[in-house]
Formats: sequence, structure tokens, C-alpha cells
Amino acid sequence: MTEIAVNTDIGEGFGVWQFTDDEALLGLVSAANVACGFHAGDPDILRRTCELAVRRGVAIGAQVSYRDLAGFGRRFLNVPRASLVNDLLYQMGALRVFAELAGGRIGYVKAHGALYNASARHREHAAAIVEAVASFDRSIPLLCQPGTETWRQAEEAGIRPLAEGFIDRGYTAEGLLVPRGQPGALVTEPEEAAARAVRMAAEGKVTAVTGEDVELSPGTLCLHSDTAGAVEIAAAVTAALRAADVSLVPIR
Amino acid sequence: MTEIAVNTDIGEGFGVWQFTDDEALLGLVSAANVACGFHAGDPDILRRTCELAVRRGVAIGAQVSYRDLAGFGRRFLNVPRASLVNDLLYQMGALRVFAELAGGRIGYVKAHGALYNASARHREHAAAIVEAVASFDRSIPLLCQPGTETWRQAEEAGIRPLAEGFIDRGYTAEGLLVPRGQPGALVTEPEEAAARAVRMAAEGKVTAVTGEDVELSPGTLCLHSDTAGAVEIAAAVTAALRAADVSLVPIR
Amino acid sequence: MTEIAVNTDIGEGFGVWQFTDDEALLGLVSAANVACGFHAGDPDILRRTCELAVRRGVAIGAQVSYRDLAGFGRRFLNVPRASLVNDLLYQMGALRVFAELAGGRIGYVKAHGALYNASARHREHAAAIVEAVASFDRSIPLLCQPGTETWRQAEEAGIRPLAEGFIDRGYTAEGLLVPRGQPGALVTEPEEAAARAVRMAAEGKVTAVTGEDVELSPGTLCLHSDTAGAVEIAAAVTAALRAADVSLVPIR
Amino acid sequence: MTEIAVNTDIGEGFGVWQFTDDEALLGLVSAANVACGFHAGDPDILRRTCELAVRRGVAIGAQVSYRDLAGFGRRFLNVPRASLVNDLLYQMGALRVFAELAGGRIGYVKAHGALYNASARHREHAAAIVEAVASFDRSIPLLCQPGTETWRQAEEAGIRPLAEGFIDRGYTAEGLLVPRGQPGALVTEPEEAAARAVRMAAEGKVTAVTGEDVELSPGTLCLHSDTAGAVEIAAAVTAALRAADVSLVPIR
Repeated sequence: MTEIAVNTDIGEGFGVWQFTDDEALLGLVSAANVACGFHAGDPDILRRTCELAVRRGVAIGAQVSYRDLAGFGRRFLNVPRASLVNDLLYQMGALRVFAELAGGRIGYVKAHGALYNASARHREHAAAIVEAVASFDRSIPLLCQPGTETWRQAEEAGIRPLAEGFIDRGYTAEGLLVPRGQPGALVTEPEEAAARAVRMAAEGKVTAVTGEDVELSPGTLCLHSDTAGAVEIAAAVTAALRAADVSLVPIR
Repeated sequence: MTEIAVNTDIGEGFGVWQFTDDEALLGLVSAANVACGFHAGDPDILRRTCELAVRRGVAIGAQVSYRDLAGFGRRFLNVPRASLVNDLLYQMGALRVFAELAGGRIGYVKAHGALYNASARHREHAAAIVEAVASFDRSIPLLCQPGTETWRQAEEAGIRPLAEGFIDRGYTAEGLLVPRGQPGALVTEPEEAAARAVRMAAEGKVTAVTGEDVELSPGTLCLHSDTAGAVEIAAAVTAALRAADVSLVPIR
Repeated sequence: MTEIAVNTDIGEGFGVWQFTDDEALLGLVSAANVACGFHAGDPDILRRTCELAVRRGVAIGAQVSYRDLAGFGRRFLNVPRASLVNDLLYQMGALRVFAELAGGRIGYVKAHGALYNASARHREHAAAIVEAVASFDRSIPLLCQPGTETWRQAEEAGIRPLAEGFIDRGYTAEGLLVPRGQPGALVTEPEEAAARAVRMAAEGKVTAVTGEDVELSPGTLCLHSDTAGAVEIAAAVTAALRAADVSLVPIR
Repeated sequence: MTEIAVNTDIGEGFGVWQFTDDEALLGLVSAANVACGFHAGDPDILRRTCELAVRRGVAIGAQVSYRDLAGFGRRFLNVPRASLVNDLLYQMGALRVFAELAGGRIGYVKAHGALYNASARHREHAAAIVEAVASFDRSIPLLCQPGTETWRQAEEAGIRPLAEGFIDRGYTAEGLLVPRGQPGALVTEPEEAAARAVRMAAEGKVTAVTGEDVELSPGTLCLHSDTAGAVEIAAAVTAALRAADVSLVPIR
């Protein structure tokens, strides 16, 4: 029987503000990328999210970010490498308290937003992420994409990179994401997303926007939680995976 | 041979800003109350401070605060109890990463500024501090004053309160601090501070502003680091303690 | 023909986060209490809100707050009086740029959340609000409640206080708000709120939870925007006011 | 008689933290680049700085920045153009209140740190600065360097760019600054800085590190306030300018 983890961003509110429907999503996915306070997430949210995740058997991932609450971590910030390492460790440490208090642990790390994107090519920032994970816990995987600087440096440093398949994003024949704004960039139909998820999990493949089969072999499937209908897509995807005898498991 | 820990506030800069002469003070005291990022202290400073402290055999204390960078944690903030618990745990968790990376650990907790003062009487905030320490690590002491709510609740919860003697503050005959602004509130002469420190450590006593002997029996001596001449006072105090065969030890 | 201004809180998002349905509310009310960045409101939101308000003929009020984004300005913060004056002026100045760029102006000031509540009795904070308004623009009114410190000091300083009638809150026979949590504290039925609004505007009266008529003579009616159904209540209220020949006017 | 404005960064503290010796510097220079709260400067500091500047006849410049308190505005932040415009207007508006309360006005605008550097080539950010100045007050100059995007776009938009001569920085034969870290990048001797300032002001020239004369014709001279000995250099420079019959005037 095939098994895969479905991860999504969780706990991205701050103070009175909410962003994602955390309760609903935590009932569907198997891995929660938990905001740690630098782009979203206050201590109350961190605690509640960890408690819910543990209760539902969902893995807790530290979703670390540039320090940019006003920009939700979506804007590149040119932090010196050594400072970025410390910024990330600070966030991981803060989250770990709540994960452990809830009876869980941090199961993986994933960079958020601009940091995720920038580190694909930015050597210093990729190095900072890898160094932070290595300093924090060498045994946990780092979610990233094959072919990126992050992936390359993680392997070099003996950190385990874990490839993501994006359920709700279109792919080119080369296996790259279709840039946002171009036709086919987003998959918004729950049924279509569900079918893609099943194929990614069961066959390790996805159909490109130009029709070709693309080999992905993802270690985990990612669902965006900030799109309209995120909960509906998540429900369709997880139901279809179960129907196809794909077991949803936490990241470990 | 008598032994005592001398604690002081450390790492209270932020970004380009510095506040205390951390290098000099860490060469003198035996316990560092390290700012954790809510009133002062950024991740770079936390890391550097922990590394310096471990290298010099100085205990690392988590100095936790209200979330108030603009006010340096010196302004009462009416946080709900449950949120305050989480605010404090977040800070402790962040500091712990750097303490452990440096090869050390968090040896104690001390509230900063307005939180320290408010919790002396504010039941909810005293309870929040005690609950945070109990959740984080039941084995470490909480620095506070006998007779306060914090002290009372710490004992009730089975947390070890540790009394402070203030080297550079005047005392009333009742053993209370002379309020700032009143004559005798501050001890600014290094030699006088040193003599008081020796007497507090060796005899457990201090002379009140009105001349009486006051019984203190402090578990640790506190030196303020934000006064002019803080380093000079610290140097005089530690030299005098050593000359009087009082051994400076970390808090444990 | 009677006329009255209906005010509500607007622009209380931050970054990616939204709080109130600003577009809908700005199409209904006649005065917008615009968050200025200390409890909510980033520069993009300030600009957009001012542009929308001017386009719809809605008055722009500066809703000033303690500096507390994490607590949404709902937690008392013990700022020294002189610093509070400057905090408030900073916010007013920032908002003024956008009001003027949009072709409008700041028509009034209203304290937000904990500052509104605290200043009812806290002399120093009431004085800070009044001083800030007096320094900023002596000609604009300050929204507050009769009988409060804020009201008293505003009158003393020659600033015009403007009384609010709360459409969606219950009143005691003494004309005070029924404390939240007690029966009758909130009016959640759109029709009931609408009827109360009409009576407040047309007769200057409201029926207390105990049945008595209470004299209010409000200078403006306030609608909370953070309740479920806020837009429905606002729609019912403004429709009923118009049906009763009460003209909705901006605050001036 | 020649006249020139000498500008320097002022008011770069935050809360308890100080950065520059504002009192001393405001007694020497004729134009203060006042931090507006996004990289440094809280409302108390803004007010005090404006009052001191007006009292001493020093021009008040709005020194606007990326929103980055932790990085002191020294790190590039990839803000979308429209948001950057609003970020800058927010800062200018906040400062204007205090400038006017002190009896002065904002006499010019200067970008700070990473924004100053990035906008030299970054079209969108240069455009944002120019648009913000144009929206705020078309009559005031924008300090920048000839040959930059900022300069070019300012001229295009009908905003007056004002060239800076850097008293304490070395120049190449092409009139560019010697990059920090290279020999001759910094001028740290007060007498040398003073001699350069006089020549820049009186002849519009500076000697390059390679010996050639470089034509600068600066509209204002800039002194860094964050270097060791900043006050000493400022004192030597202003004394030498006066001795050479160069009158120190505000920027207007």
C-alpha cells in the first residue's frame, strides 16, 4: 500500500487576524507547516496549532521565514547569512516549546514564501537554511525542490531534502512550475486536483500543461491553504487518495 | 567557604543598538539575565550572549518580558493570563536553542521590568510566570522577591523561588526597596556597593537607610547593568566578594 | 429633517490580513474610524480606506491606539503621558497624508479599544488624547462618552467632545453600557438595532434593559464592525434611518 | 560668499536605545536627516529632534526607509512599488506633524540605507521615492546622486534632485565612491575631512584616491553620524568651513 504525506500552511494568523481555516485543514492533511511568528503566528496560535496537530496525528513542520510581518514573508529581505541562520533558529526554538508541550515534536522544516523561493538560487540563504536545520536537528527533513541550491546544499551537508509535488499548480514538460499569471499555472478544480494528487502519489507522475508525462516522485504533496476553496480542494484530495488506497502519513 | 551568584541584565540591545557593556559584564558576574527578544535582544545577540556566557562559565537565565520593544518592557501591559503564559514560553524556547547550541542550558528564569514589578501583586501575571516556568522546566529556579505573589504562587506550584538581594538599591527597615526618587534609593558608589554585597553574601544582612540591620538571606545578588558606572560597580563588587572569600557561582 | 452620523471602525486589517468588510461598510455608514497603524492598518490600507471614504462622502476619523499590533490595541498599556501624546500625533500625521491625498481631511478623532476604555477614568491617558487633538487640530471633535475623564478634559481644554450612542449595545437605566457578558449587553438582531438607531437619532432616547427610557442625545451613532453580521446590521440601520427621514451625514 | 548645507543622520535611536549624539550634531550641522520610525526613530525622538532642529535653525529632512527595525533599514527589502510609495508617505506624514508642531517644516527628503543604495539602480524603488515626494510636496528637494535612477526619475518628474558630496568617503577618478572595504574608502581624520569639505564647498572639487581632481559641485555635503569620532569630524568640518568664509545654511 502506498503512503504519502500531504502538507499545507497552517497557523498563519496573528492577534485577532486569521488567514487559513486551520481547524478544517488540520482535519484533512497529514503535515502542518506551522508559522513561527516572523511572517505570521503569535504564541497563542502556535500553541493551539501544535495541540490540534498532535491531537489529530498531523506532523508539525517549522515554517520559517524572513522577519516581515507586514509583508507576510513574501518579500525578499537581504539578511546577512549568519543573521538569517539565527533568525531561523529563533523561530524553530520558539515552535519547539509548543510542539513538545503538546506531546509532539518538530518533524521537518520548510522555508516560507520569499525565503523558499529565493533560496532556490540564493547561495547564502540556501546555506543559512541548511545550517539552521543542521544546528537544530540533523535528523529531520527539509522540504524543498530537486535542482535548487537548497536541495544541493542540504545533500552536501548531510541533511535530508524532501521533494514536494504541488497538487494545485501546473507543471511544464521540464518539471518546473508554470509561473503564476500564465495559463495553467493554478489548478482550482477540486476533482482535477484530486486526480493529480492520486497520480503523483501512486505513479510519481504529473501531466504537464503541454500534455507530456513528467516524472516527479515527490516525497510529500503540498496543498496551498491560501487559495479560495482550499478546504474543498483538501477534502477532495484526501478523499481521493484514501479511495485509491494511498495512506496519508505524517512527515518523518 | 560562602558562595553566591551575582546576576545582571545582559544582551539588551536590538539590531544596531546596544544598551549594556555585555563583554565587560560577562567577565565579572556569574549569572546573565538574557533578554529574549520581546523587550530587547535579537537572534544574533541571543546567540553571541549565550556563547560568551558559556565560555566564561556564567549561568544563562531567561529574562522574559511583555511584548514591548518600544517601551523596553518597562510599561505594564494588560495581557490575558493564558496569552502571557504563551508569550513567556515562546521567549524561553527561542533562548533555549542558543543556550544549547553554545553548550549550555537555561539555568533560571527572571521576569523583566514591568512584568517583574507587576507580578509582585498581580495574581494573573504572577500565575502566568509560574505556569510558564512549570511548563518549561520544573527544575529551574525563578528569581523573585519573598512576600510577593510570584513567590507565593511559585512555592504553591512547587517551583523554586530564589530571593534576590539588590546590591545597588537602598532598603527600608522593613526590608523593602526604597522607591526610586527618594533619598537613599540608589547606591552609586562602587566601594559602598561592594561592602553591601559582601555583607549580604556573608551575613545575609543589609543596613537600612534608617540604620537598622535588615535580614535578607538572598539566594543571589542582583546588579543593575543600566546605570552609569555599572561595569565599575560590578568590578568592585566581584573583587570585594573574592577578597572576602565569597565564591562567585552560577545559579543552579 | 433630522440628521446624524453613523460611525464604525474601518481599515482594521494588516498586511495580508483583513478584519472588517470595509468596502461594504463604507457604502453604508457616514463616518469611518480609520485604524492608523498602531493596532491595525498598514500604509496600503490607510490609503485605500481614505480613497474609498472620500469617494463615498464618508468622514475620515483618526482612530488612534496604544502601540500593540499583537493585541489589536485591546490591552491597557501603561505609556507615560508625554509618550502617549506623541504616539497619537504620529498616527494622526500618518493618516492625514492619505486623507489629504485622497482629497479629504481628518474630520474627527476617536480612541480605539483599551485606550478608549482606559481614558474614561485614567487621567493621564485622557489628558494625552486631549492634548494630542489640541496639538493636531483644535477644530475637530473628539468622540467619547459624557461623564468620562476624556469628556471632562476635552471640555476644559476647549476641544469639542462628541457623544456616541451605541446602536448594538444594551443600556442600563443610568445610561451606562451593560457590561459584556451580562444579559442584554449586545443587540444582534438587525431589526432591533435599526429601531434603536432610529429612536436614538429621532428622539435622542433608548430603552434600557430594565425597560426605562434613557436620555442619550448622541452626537453620532456607533456601529461595531467586528461582530458577526456587522454588514447586515449596518444595512438595516441605515435603511431604517433613511426611511424615518433621518439624513446620514459625515462628522464635522 | 559661498554657502552650503551640511547634512547628517539624526534621531536614529528607538525606545531606550540611542545611536548618534543628536544634541552635539544638531549644534554643528545645518540639515538633519531625521529617522521617521521605520528603521529607527520613535515618536518621542521625532518630536525632540524636530524641536532641537528648529531651535538651532537646522533644516528637517525626512529620512525614509524600508520597514526594517531589526536591520536598521540596511537590508534590501523587495517591496512592491505601490506599497513602497505608501510606506514612504506614511513616514513623511508622521514626521510632518512634529516638524510643524515645533514651528518648522520638512525641507527635503532623503532615502536611508539600503533604500538609498538600491534606488540608485532599482527602477521601481527609485520611482516609488520620486512618486512619494511628488505626492507629498513637489517643492522640496530629494537628496541623491547624479547618474542614478533616482536622480534621472526625479528630473523627469519635475522633482528637484540635490547632489551630495560625501565628506568622509573616498572618491575614484570617475567620481564614484570607493567601495567600503577598499583602501581609501573612509576619511577618518577630522583635519583631512575638514579640508575636503572646504574644497568641495568652495571649488566644487575633491581629490580622488588616485590623485586626480574630480568635479562634484555638490548641492549639500553629507557627514556620516554613525562612525566613531563623528562629532569630532563634524566639529572640524564646520569650523573649517566657517574659517573659509563658507556659510552653513539649511537645505531649502
